[in-house]
Amino acid sequence: MDYSKFSKELETISGISLTPFKEETKEIDWDAVKENIEFLIGNGVEVIVPCGNTSEFYALTIEEAKEEVKKVVEIVDGRAKVVAGIGYSMKTAIELGKDAEQAGADAVMIHMPVHPYITDGGLIDYFSGIIEALHIPSLIYFKDPSVSDDVIKQLASIDKLVGIKYAINDLPRFAKIVTEVPADKNNLTWICGTAEKWAPFFYNAGAKGFTSGLVNIYPQKSFELLTALQEGNQETIWKVWKEVLPFEDLRAKYNNGNNVVVIKEAMELAGLRAGVTREPVGPLNASDRQEVMDLLKVWGFELKGENVIS
Amino acid sequence: MDYSKFSKELETISGISLTPFKEETKEIDWDAVKENIEFLIGNGVEVIVPCGNTSEFYALTIEEAKEEVKKVVEIVDGRAKVVAGIGYSMKTAIELGKDAEQAGADAVMIHMPVHPYITDGGLIDYFSGIIEALHIPSLIYFKDPSVSDDVIKQLASIDKLVGIKYAINDLPRFAKIVTEVPADKNNLTWICGTAEKWAPFFYNAGAKGFTSGLVNIYPQKSFELLTALQEGNQETIWKVWKEVLPFEDLRAKYNNGNNVVVIKEAMELAGLRAGVTREPVGPLNASDRQEVMDLLKVWGFELKGENVIS
Repeated sequence: MDYSKFSKELETISGISLTPFKEETKEIDWDAVKENIEFLIGNGVEVIVPCGNTSEFYALTIEEAKEEVKKVVEIVDGRAKVVAGIGYSMKTAIELGKDAEQAGADAVMIHMPVHPYITDGGLIDYFSGIIEALHIPSLIYFKDPSVSDDVIKQLASIDKLVGIKYAINDLPRFAKIVTEVPADKNNLTWICGTAEKWAPFFYNAGAKGFTSGLVNIYPQKSFELLTALQEGNQETIWKVWKEVLPFEDLRAKYNNGNNVVVIKEAMELAGLRAGVTREPVGPLNASDRQEVMDLLKVWGFELKGENVIS
Repeated sequence: MDYSKFSKELETISGISLTPFKEETKEIDWDAVKENIEFLIGNGVEVIVPCGNTSEFYALTIEEAKEEVKKVVEIVDGRAKVVAGIGYSMKTAIELGKDAEQAGADAVMIHMPVHPYITDGGLIDYFSGIIEALHIPSLIYFKDPSVSDDVIKQLASIDKLVGIKYAINDLPRFAKIVTEVPADKNNLTWICGTAEKWAPFFYNAGAKGFTSGLVNIYPQKSFELLTALQEGNQETIWKVWKEVLPFEDLRAKYNNGNNVVVIKEAMELAGLRAGVTREPVGPLNASDRQEVMDLLKVWGFELKGENVIS
């Protein structure tokens, strides 16, 4: 595989796909999954990430996570790249990775380990052990500020590491590691891991792509931002940024407790099928829900009353 | 089951048992597990917690976690209470809980969900759903400062909830919730979740037990502290506290990255069998290792050279 070519294909939006759950049983609604993936592809999303944080990866069992990747690969059927989120213990991550590989995923995104005790050396062994165990390339989801960026430096030269999804909103820190680990020499793409709200700042410091949950409801805006960032069109960048900021701020409420449920409620209001969230994410309260409705109206969406979650 | 009687039995040290891994393969060393459990029981530990954080729960696969609980219950054979750590997605936690129940564990300790997005309402549903799904009683490991203590208030009246392992080192906050949720009226025991270093402060605010990793290497000190806390013997409390503080501080180094490996290295140096850590926890560096050796000498341990990890 040409890892260098693949890393270039990450210079776009990484669309984190949702996992719709049925309201009564909280089981995965596979029909809704299909509709959502078709919506992403129909709107030009080229990189789809099942089992990301916004996919409620941590509310799935290991078996459900495997099934989700398999189903998404089947639905996508070569029309976009599928980057499967994997994680937990190193053994479990490798098991998930091999399963994703077998299912036909194009790459994996390795979550930060959920282990409460992490040393830099131990983390290097964790990531490199997983990357080396798989044939398909890996991205790393780097989000723990207490871990040193030396971890990235130590791993950067691995051919099969094609991207870093950087999710620590410390721009000088990010700019420094981008300088120290040149993307072109290491076949890797720097991706802003904190979506549209932070993308302009990360692009300014060397990112070439960003993750998005918004893309599940308003892909036009995400792509307007991507194009403006690629063209350096400052006016459009800040226009779009201001338009999406209230939505992203609402998702960030309650220490990000609202991250997924705001998107799901917005999708249901807009006539898409997102279903409910699983524990430990509860439904929106009335005032936050009103704010979602107001935002959708400002954006010009027609609210589909019959699909609104009561 | 008399939940009230059980909660009283938690007014002691919760000994978090380690998971020894073999140096070459990093597989679980079951003979060493047996030796360590016998050591705990032989030294009077009455509550043993496999699959806690210091047990490297998050470095185990789901199957290994189940096996660990099963083996520990077998070894303990009624000589102490076994409180099995469970966690991950709600479905997975219930699966682990039912398995622990079947294996004969006395209770479960529900870890905080690893999900990055948590709402208070969603967390109440998560914990109550797990507690209600099991016959054996539950403890909650409460450690995320961004979650409201209202979660505890809402859950406190559930009969099968017998203890809160509180691991947020905000003493006024802890003292407030202890006042608001009286232990005797709710059949629950407040446990200091941050071990010997914090136990004197938590006891002062209403805790009646504390967790311990130290108990795996120096149970005499842990029990000296417990007795002093129960008797209100201030002189002994602070004498022991000063003796164990450097060890606990060394464990807290690198944002707690050293938590487990310091105990494991100390045990090996003392002639016990703890083996190595799994990723993402690496071995100690030379200077930290020297510090462990110096501490053990101060404590009067004879170092067993032949067992020292090279």
